[in-house]
Amino acid sequence: MPHTSPPSFFFRNAAQLLTLSGPPVPRRGAALGELGMIPRGGVLTEGVTILAVGSTRSLERQALRLRAEAIDCRGRVVMPGFIDSHTHLIFAGSRVDDYELRLRGKTYEEIAQAGGGIQSSARTIRKSGIPSLVEHARKFLDQFAAHGTTTVEVKSGYGLDIAQELKVLRAIRSLQTGAALELVPTLLALHALPSSFRGRSEKYVEEVITRLVPGVAHEKLAEFIDCFCDRGAFSVEDCRHVFDAGRKFGLTPRIHAEQLARTGATRLGIEVDAASADHLDKLSAGDIRALARSNTVATLLPGANFHLGLRQYPPARKLIDAGAAVALATDFNPGTSPTLNMQFIMSLACTQMRMTPAEAIAASTVNGACALRRADRVGSLEAGKQADLIVLDVGDYREIPYYFAVNHCVMTVKRGKIVYARK
Amino acid sequence: MPHTSPPSFFFRNAAQLLTLSGPPVPRRGAALGELGMIPRGGVLTEGVTILAVGSTRSLERQALRLRAEAIDCRGRVVMPGFIDSHTHLIFAGSRVDDYELRLRGKTYEEIAQAGGGIQSSARTIRKSGIPSLVEHARKFLDQFAAHGTTTVEVKSGYGLDIAQELKVLRAIRSLQTGAALELVPTLLALHALPSSFRGRSEKYVEEVITRLVPGVAHEKLAEFIDCFCDRGAFSVEDCRHVFDAGRKFGLTPRIHAEQLARTGATRLGIEVDAASADHLDKLSAGDIRALARSNTVATLLPGANFHLGLRQYPPARKLIDAGAAVALATDFNPGTSPTLNMQFIMSLACTQMRMTPAEAIAASTVNGACALRRADRVGSLEAGKQADLIVLDVGDYREIPYYFAVNHCVMTVKRGKIVYARK
Repeated sequence: MPHTSPPSFFFRNAAQLLTLSGPPVPRRGAALGELGMIPRGGVLTEGVTILAVGSTRSLERQALRLRAEAIDCRGRVVMPGFIDSHTHLIFAGSRVDDYELRLRGKTYEEIAQAGGGIQSSARTIRKSGIPSLVEHARKFLDQFAAHGTTTVEVKSGYGLDIAQELKVLRAIRSLQTGAALELVPTLLALHALPSSFRGRSEKYVEEVITRLVPGVAHEKLAEFIDCFCDRGAFSVEDCRHVFDAGRKFGLTPRIHAEQLARTGATRLGIEVDAASADHLDKLSAGDIRALARSNTVATLLPGANFHLGLRQYPPARKLIDAGAAVALATDFNPGTSPTLNMQFIMSLACTQMRMTPAEAIAASTVNGACALRRADRVGSLEAGKQADLIVLDVGDYREIPYYFAVNHCVMTVKRGKIVYARK
Repeated sequence: MPHTSPPSFFFRNAAQLLTLSGPPVPRRGAALGELGMIPRGGVLTEGVTILAVGSTRSLERQALRLRAEAIDCRGRVVMPGFIDSHTHLIFAGSRVDDYELRLRGKTYEEIAQAGGGIQSSARTIRKSGIPSLVEHARKFLDQFAAHGTTTVEVKSGYGLDIAQELKVLRAIRSLQTGAALELVPTLLALHALPSSFRGRSEKYVEEVITRLVPGVAHEKLAEFIDCFCDRGAFSVEDCRHVFDAGRKFGLTPRIHAEQLARTGATRLGIEVDAASADHLDKLSAGDIRALARSNTVATLLPGANFHLGLRQYPPARKLIDAGAAVALATDFNPGTSPTLNMQFIMSLACTQMRMTPAEAIAASTVNGACALRRADRVGSLEAGKQADLIVLDVGDYREIPYYFAVNHCVMTVKRGKIVYARK
């Protein structure tokens, strides 16, 4: 019998069911590591929603009544799907040429002069139509699902002019149609200065404010507005103007901050009530205290540090210990972080930034949901929330980061529907 | 019609066929990066052997005559299966407790005092029968195959007494029976001093020489003999005695060298004509020159550096530039390198040690084969060699390390038989 809506499922006997329910969100300090674990746990779904969560035994009767399809999770971990709150999913070709040049010792500037860098992504975007952008991204989106991610933020930003940025955001909308996962579109309004505006950045910022932002809002193409506020990118002042424009149109700020240098971007993020400030490699002690007092989630992207071969990583421990709300994301993009595996981001968080496996899980789920302002719906397994969950082939959640650089996910459920199952 | 031996296959139209044929082996210096690439290449197999390698067009007629089963590799890379020349595959439980303690700031000594470390692996081995050791390892072996590895060196070493070491080697032999992949057994004769021999290491070395080595040789349980020659492990003198004993019984030396401190282990390896000296973090400039003049392969294990969160990696560039033969391996083990993904080891080699993708591929195939003294049979795709090859879902071989911490392998062929195919 064909289902018009997803049927009812009963995920039974998980060795460890991680509910991530309990403490207030976003999670801070010691509460970050609270997983709300239920041994031999079960989850009962009905349609797109979680109906009940508890010990398997306590749910048996209800599952029978519902004629729920039972899925045996013996020896496995069941947890919320990963929330990847920072990606640049829409691009048109790898930057593997840049990668090899960099490994051979070329500098960022030399690679840019050789035609590489963000401007090279912009050139390939310009040549691509929406259908080809969508097809390229859809292959990766299937891999996100296979690696256990159920919600993916997607930024524009490789367009680098008004028309191209709109095209990229329309591609994101088109990608969402028929996609199994949930995409959260962000206008990355200021990423790099288009070469046609060299020496006239005020002019570009003005175009962004007067044409791009209103255009995006008119077509309802984005939920968030982001700026790359850093040395060699855009100033705090420029970004403030753009955020102000975005907020007038109902776009919520998020910010690329303090990746290359300490510029005050994080303070700007807090000032404009950004949902998230991302990267944060060069935070000052004062920035850390300010984040801890704010509602802005500190989103760390260690995949970029890894791929660039940096020896330093963002100060996760200091942020957590100070009481900031820490999230993790892939930063999936062709230049600096070509990975979509959140499980490996957890490995980096633990091995390189000394987060515990429990902290890394909460930062990849419930706090990621906060960074995307949808913790009321996703990020934890609780009755009434969206049935977004994953099954991992490990008996102990700590093995997810421990056995590293592989994919432990064997099943991904989005809105109550099985969207990936390993054969 | 059931096949008693593998049938004939025709791998057609690979976007890039990497033959790894050409320069003498082991590969050194600039020759390391020569992939012997054939665009739109094809490989024709018959039974367990490669019959022909060339452009797809040049093989069409022969393939038709043979009625070879065609496998379309359009848009994909075809290359030799990975040779993982350093693993500790036989263990009985994860060391995830140690992992979490270490992330929480405990030292190696504190973890050992809390019952962790190698001695904890030895305890769980002691409690396990051969069937359970084999079952535990077989699950991982399936994952090795799924990640494109076709030949796996397997060390004993967690037995830590004569009877237990023999048991582990018998488990390796039992695992080989019916395994799709080829296992290369190594007696890790000196790994850590058993606690029952504390303060009497000469006594243990004597037992190893007079009882363990002859016992292993008598049952033909190993091809290689290895020692952990390092600070806090065993001295150069102890290891020399054990290697001499092993060589008398036809066991070829390989050595854990210069991981924790520079002790002269590499020079010992060269002196006893070791097939490989492994780790090599603390090499002196003189050691590097000596390796370059020797037949001993320098096997680098960056997975351990990664998992331990070290900021320093082995000096790959210096070794290659000096003319040493460099190989890469996973060091798969529960304490310091719980990964079996050779593709990710390539990412570490490139991103952290500045090897090029081409060098990393040769180091993971043909030079790995040299480190296991079987380059006459495996490690490259040439007529007459064993049909060990993999198909990866990338159009450019450089994307294997570039898109990191995922599995690009979609098909693994061992001795002409498809042992893994992604559904």
